[in-house]
Amino acid sequence: MNNISKNQNTSLGIVGLGAFGQLAALHLAQYFEIMAYDPSPDVAKLAKQLGVHLTSLHSVSQADVILIAAPVSSFEQVVSEIAVACKPGALVIDVGSVKVVPSEIMRWLLPDNVDIVASHPLFGPQSATTGIKGLKIAVCPIQGKRHARLVAFLRKILGLTVIVTTPEDHDQEAAVVQGLTHLIAKVLLRMGPLPTRMTTKSFDLLSEAISMVQHDAPEVFEAIEKANPYAETVRRRFFDLAASLSEELEAALRASPNNESGH
Amino acid sequence: MNNISKNQNTSLGIVGLGAFGQLAALHLAQYFEIMAYDPSPDVAKLAKQLGVHLTSLHSVSQADVILIAAPVSSFEQVVSEIAVACKPGALVIDVGSVKVVPSEIMRWLLPDNVDIVASHPLFGPQSATTGIKGLKIAVCPIQGKRHARLVAFLRKILGLTVIVTTPEDHDQEAAVVQGLTHLIAKVLLRMGPLPTRMTTKSFDLLSEAISMVQHDAPEVFEAIEKANPYAETVRRRFFDLAASLSEELEAALRASPNNESGH
Repeated sequence: MNNISKNQNTSLGIVGLGAFGQLAALHLAQYFEIMAYDPSPDVAKLAKQLGVHLTSLHSVSQADVILIAAPVSSFEQVVSEIAVACKPGALVIDVGSVKVVPSEIMRWLLPDNVDIVASHPLFGPQSATTGIKGLKIAVCPIQGKRHARLVAFLRKILGLTVIVTTPEDHDQEAAVVQGLTHLIAKVLLRMGPLPTRMTTKSFDLLSEAISMVQHDAPEVFEAIEKANPYAETVRRRFFDLAASLSEELEAALRASPNNESGH
Repeated sequence: MNNISKNQNTSLGIVGLGAFGQLAALHLAQYFEIMAYDPSPDVAKLAKQLGVHLTSLHSVSQADVILIAAPVSSFEQVVSEIAVACKPGALVIDVGSVKVVPSEIMRWLLPDNVDIVASHPLFGPQSATTGIKGLKIAVCPIQGKRHARLVAFLRKILGLTVIVTTPEDHDQEAAVVQGLTHLIAKVLLRMGPLPTRMTTKSFDLLSEAISMVQHDAPEVFEAIEKANPYAETVRRRFFDLAASLSEELEAALRASPNNESGH
């Protein structure tokens, strides 16, 4: 990322070819020489399709820019391995849904001579079907100064809307945004197939919102609910408010004179 | 509605100039001579703006087509008054959010020599800001045969998507569609101002859905929850599923080894 425009001399290492790693490879292949590591046994075909060079985690860790797109469960292990292999001056970026804990892990384990940026692209393959222009990404500078160049690249070259923030501010807002979306989606999916015929515009929007997250990897929900320090408060508040609304409604409907006549 | 195209000789009487009565007047003024009745003291200016002739409920009930856009609470009273004043051969249409009870009331109180259609436009002023073409309306034929002409008018002249159905099928589906939208909106509005900055596409859709119903008249929510015979089942199921999801999550997160290390 030393030069913002197409620079096949800057190497990019992607750790993890899950849904987001694939999306990143797809959109970054024209700017960087990409190598990737993924422990799954069947990624060879996928890597070939994406045009990325599949190699070991050690080799990927020696790239100029290292993008960590691994699941939360293996995050600490991955960062430890990058820490012993990375080159001085490398830029390490993660892309998880939570930022407080991962940025602490990266600051703690990675050497002082690398730059660190914690990021959260607020989109996935579901919202990127027609391109990524205008989509949002949260960027938290953690160590070093190269976040400025990264932000310029994301804005000017990829056309993303970049929100520069702190891990704490990010997690607080994401706890509400992602926490509520996933909780509501989970409740509604349990209600069974939703109507599609006699629907209002607002219900159609609700259904669309749910369909966008229902195929998210279970790790995404797990990350939000477990690893976001503010998630528990949001979750409890949502369920408490639902319970108190339920009680109020039952009481109001019992008390209503209209109830007896049935209309 | 004897002639589908512009017919200034067919009179239309609108009972109630609330949000929906106004929307109807706005879109139907070019096809009918409209008179309206509304008991509110300050509708004179509004009626003038809409170009409708304000008169008594008795006079409105003598129109060729009578559109009941009155609140659920006064519905039975309004229908009784129309029943004694309406002309033989009139067409009476209601537009409420529930259909089983209102259609029973209309069939019971109105004379046999009028046609009756129970309808539910699945939209309001919020979703009609850029016109009504393509929006949905549920139509339940209750008495007489003129529903066929009405359906043709709604489809061909107004460009609406018409769903011909029964009051029972309508209420069953609407209990889910409108019940869930309003319950979720009520819970989320109690959570306080929702984030607008670090939002995902799915959360934006959710916010848009909520903003569309949050200014609905309280009568709409009341009608859905009280007067729809299927609403209670949907409401209980929603709250029960939320409660069981809450318990499951707390148990799973307590049991998780990741919980202790905080990530």
